[in-house]
Amino acid sequence: MARQLIECVPNFSEGRRPAVIDAIVAPFQNTPGCYLFDHRADADHNRLVVSLVGEPQPVQRALLAAARIAIEHIDMRTHRGGHPRIGAVDVIPFTPLKNIDMPACVALAREFGRRYQEETGVPVYFYEEAALRPERRRLEAVRKGQYEGLKEAIGRPQRHPDVGPPELHPRAGATVIGARRFLVAYNINLDTDDLAVAKKIAAALRASSGGLCHVKGIGLSLTDRKMVQVSLNIVDHEKNPLYRVQEMVRAEARRWGVHIVESEVYGMVPAAALLSSVQYYLQIAGFDPGQVIELRLLEMMGQRD
Amino acid sequence: MARQLIECVPNFSEGRRPAVIDAIVAPFQNTPGCYLFDHRADADHNRLVVSLVGEPQPVQRALLAAARIAIEHIDMRTHRGGHPRIGAVDVIPFTPLKNIDMPACVALAREFGRRYQEETGVPVYFYEEAALRPERRRLEAVRKGQYEGLKEAIGRPQRHPDVGPPELHPRAGATVIGARRFLVAYNINLDTDDLAVAKKIAAALRASSGGLCHVKGIGLSLTDRKMVQVSLNIVDHEKNPLYRVQEMVRAEARRWGVHIVESEVYGMVPAAALLSSVQYYLQIAGFDPGQVIELRLLEMMGQRD
Repeated sequence: MARQLIECVPNFSEGRRPAVIDAIVAPFQNTPGCYLFDHRADADHNRLVVSLVGEPQPVQRALLAAARIAIEHIDMRTHRGGHPRIGAVDVIPFTPLKNIDMPACVALAREFGRRYQEETGVPVYFYEEAALRPERRRLEAVRKGQYEGLKEAIGRPQRHPDVGPPELHPRAGATVIGARRFLVAYNINLDTDDLAVAKKIAAALRASSGGLCHVKGIGLSLTDRKMVQVSLNIVDHEKNPLYRVQEMVRAEARRWGVHIVESEVYGMVPAAALLSSVQYYLQIAGFDPGQVIELRLLEMMGQRD
Repeated sequence: MARQLIECVPNFSEGRRPAVIDAIVAPFQNTPGCYLFDHRADADHNRLVVSLVGEPQPVQRALLAAARIAIEHIDMRTHRGGHPRIGAVDVIPFTPLKNIDMPACVALAREFGRRYQEETGVPVYFYEEAALRPERRRLEAVRKGQYEGLKEAIGRPQRHPDVGPPELHPRAGATVIGARRFLVAYNINLDTDDLAVAKKIAAALRASSGGLCHVKGIGLSLTDRKMVQVSLNIVDHEKNPLYRVQEMVRAEARRWGVHIVESEVYGMVPAAALLSSVQYYLQIAGFDPGQVIELRLLEMMGQRD
């Protein structure tokens, strides 16, 4: 079977103590088959965001090891920080990357959630695609009231966890686990300093005001550069590919006599999100990602492991 | 040090006997660190073309093992086939892919050539970027007269091999070894059945008639589809990127009221050749290939080996 690849971006409630951060990150560095792409600790938020890619089994193994360390060293009763959180291990989202689809990733998240609760005693909520109750799809709904508020609220049936008894782990709180699509952060800069233009274009693009179903977006000023930016999150790059977003922004900008100066892909991006745009613009018929040497090589290395 | 990757497309003078073909290919399948992408045997040409990717050391080790088998089983004195050739192991081109530049690939080709001659006794000519004499850059010049003609000609100083005594190996002939860039085969189909249009556009594009310095091209009829094709080889996709070729073809076609219907990337292509075009069309500023999950993963897997 072709090797499955997932992305996982666990968030831990520790952004200040380097020794604890290093200890949490260590299992991600040392587990074969789990690749640590990035980790960023923010002292103000008092939060650690880790970016992993790998096969489902080693990623889950590393997550459990890291969670044990986080739960041992983080005490939510005294934790303070600028970012909303309900637990020492706050959020664990799984994202399908390769040879695994969303239903399989949902199953994985739920299975992992049950095992995690069993092994740590920390109650679990499922969110996004893995949500068991529709009102829990949105992370904000699950985290409402944060650790401090949830301590009481968890006793009410509508706030009961999806796995585990209806009470917070005294030190570690609760954990939100789920499955979601890969989010591409895509910004487009325009040759005007008129913020209203960026806001109008963002409104035309985003789902919340009736635009593309899987795009979120806002307009921003880049004051130093005398430009404005349409700052977008593409939540499903298969259904709303980058080229379509680009051409929609271009067409909307034309209405105001404004042009695209440049765009920015912020952070990581799956190859498929770029290949769909190169196929569009170069009008490539019958393209197979296996024609890309590096993708083919990655596939072959996986099979030989 | 980051892992070096090369491509190698050795050509063997055997396209008819399956058992010999399998034996030649086996070392490419069984050497760790050498990845066999493809092999195609052609009975008319009586020739085997193998496509490999991997690290320099294992690729060279597999090449020597395969060459020994080819030399043992192929007798050039009785070999017949439609494709020009001078040896049982006819041509071995090395192509830089990743973390290795052309001068390093030239050094590798020359070192390998010396070792190959020592171990097999087969005389070696260096061609393309690895040529030691300018007139030997072109493969056709080295192969002039083929095995049968070279038998005599090799005695003349201007046809002496670059490595080894001035006589063919009785059974295995001689081998041409070199370094060259990755060639991208790119075809563009137009909505006309007028072959003259495709020929004019190909002439505008190709180096031999004064177009882009690293492009070769011809015009072809696609009679069944009532279209014509500009069939191009992009010899240096960094200097002559795909998007520039596409836009030049589009602009030339416009002169004749003709449009691009579709294009085709034929065979393998390095990720960089596609990324440069997506950066152009999406106007992405400051893009780093390390942002592409799969490329980053490949790099990390290499470092951990």
